[in-house]
Amino acid sequence: MSLVKSFHYHVSPGVLIGGFMIELAYRNLPPETIFDVICETSKCLPDAVQLLTPCTIGNRWLKIIDVGRYALAFYDKYSGEGVRVHLVHDKIEAWPEIKTWFLKLKPKQLQDSQRLFGQIKEADTGIYQVDKIRVARDFLKKEPDEPVSFCPLCHEVFLSSNGAVCPACSGKYLPYRSGSNSALPYYEPVSPANGPSQESRHG
Amino acid sequence: MSLVKSFHYHVSPGVLIGGFMIELAYRNLPPETIFDVICETSKCLPDAVQLLTPCTIGNRWLKIIDVGRYALAFYDKYSGEGVRVHLVHDKIEAWPEIKTWFLKLKPKQLQDSQRLFGQIKEADTGIYQVDKIRVARDFLKKEPDEPVSFCPLCHEVFLSSNGAVCPACSGKYLPYRSGSNSALPYYEPVSPANGPSQESRHG
Repeated sequence: MSLVKSFHYHVSPGVLIGGFMIELAYRNLPPETIFDVICETSKCLPDAVQLLTPCTIGNRWLKIIDVGRYALAFYDKYSGEGVRVHLVHDKIEAWPEIKTWFLKLKPKQLQDSQRLFGQIKEADTGIYQVDKIRVARDFLKKEPDEPVSFCPLCHEVFLSSNGAVCPACSGKYLPYRSGSNSALPYYEPVSPANGPSQESRHG
Repeated sequence: MSLVKSFHYHVSPGVLIGGFMIELAYRNLPPETIFDVICETSKCLPDAVQLLTPCTIGNRWLKIIDVGRYALAFYDKYSGEGVRVHLVHDKIEAWPEIKTWFLKLKPKQLQDSQRLFGQIKEADTGIYQVDKIRVARDFLKKEPDEPVSFCPLCHEVFLSSNGAVCPACSGKYLPYRSGSNSALPYYEPVSPANGPSQESRHG
């Protein structure tokens, strides 16, 4: 729990549920499988994967394909054979707090977190479904080590596969301007120890 | 380094460089700023952010907008004021190993990792540029706690904002079939301790 808190910043029901889902995925993969993971949501679940498996967003062994479902797939990175685990709504009837959380029947502040965590633990692996999957060959191909180019507009280095101009300069949405803003000094004598605190963040 | 290894699975130059970029972002934000982060690449850099700040993919304080540039933005989550940090190619001329790595002048196996890490540390914060940015108001809006629906096709719960049918069933690409595959048992007596090992994974 303290690991979850230090990483995800708060212990969320979704990360705990993710722990059970990952446990089930492990149990249903042949031992020694070298696996990659796909998360079908970007909310909470990816953090359980990043904490409990070697797969992270940055090392590219975890991919998020956000179709808004609370599901994940573990699969052999060479054969594509694997399992998909999801939370089954029929099975949460017996667990009112899980149902309330999963179906968003109450605002978060009104949920009884202690009962919710208790029910998730008590339900154990009984509220999930595991299905065999086979990931498409094309998706398994090792990403080539792409060459880079200089963007003639922003003068930054980018992956050449994106075209002659980097995606940010050719119109892909970024919520800020970059490239022509006034530069700050590279170094300002602000000690990182005095840097921003996240103690009071709320949301 | 051992923290990086346990999370990102290997100590990568990109994560170390990310560490310096984050240090610069912290120094150039007012103390006590409650910040969110945008990464302009999904390679390596997000893991540095997830290790060294409270912002993760799963808690939604880190967002990846992949325009293929090695850059990140830290910004006040309420005002949008912040800084963007990127690696500047003009400044790496003096650091041949960094240049070789960044511009991909040699295959990874032929890079001199020890010299590369040494140069990254020696270059310190001198190879980056920090620019002021202001993130668009629309992007700062708190994500509403979206209601969920049952998908009439896969019978799974999904975020209602996606329409009447979940994105996976309405055609969004997933590299495997789901919903109609043969179910595995929910529980198989395979101890997680005997589960897959990642010791021998290589890429």
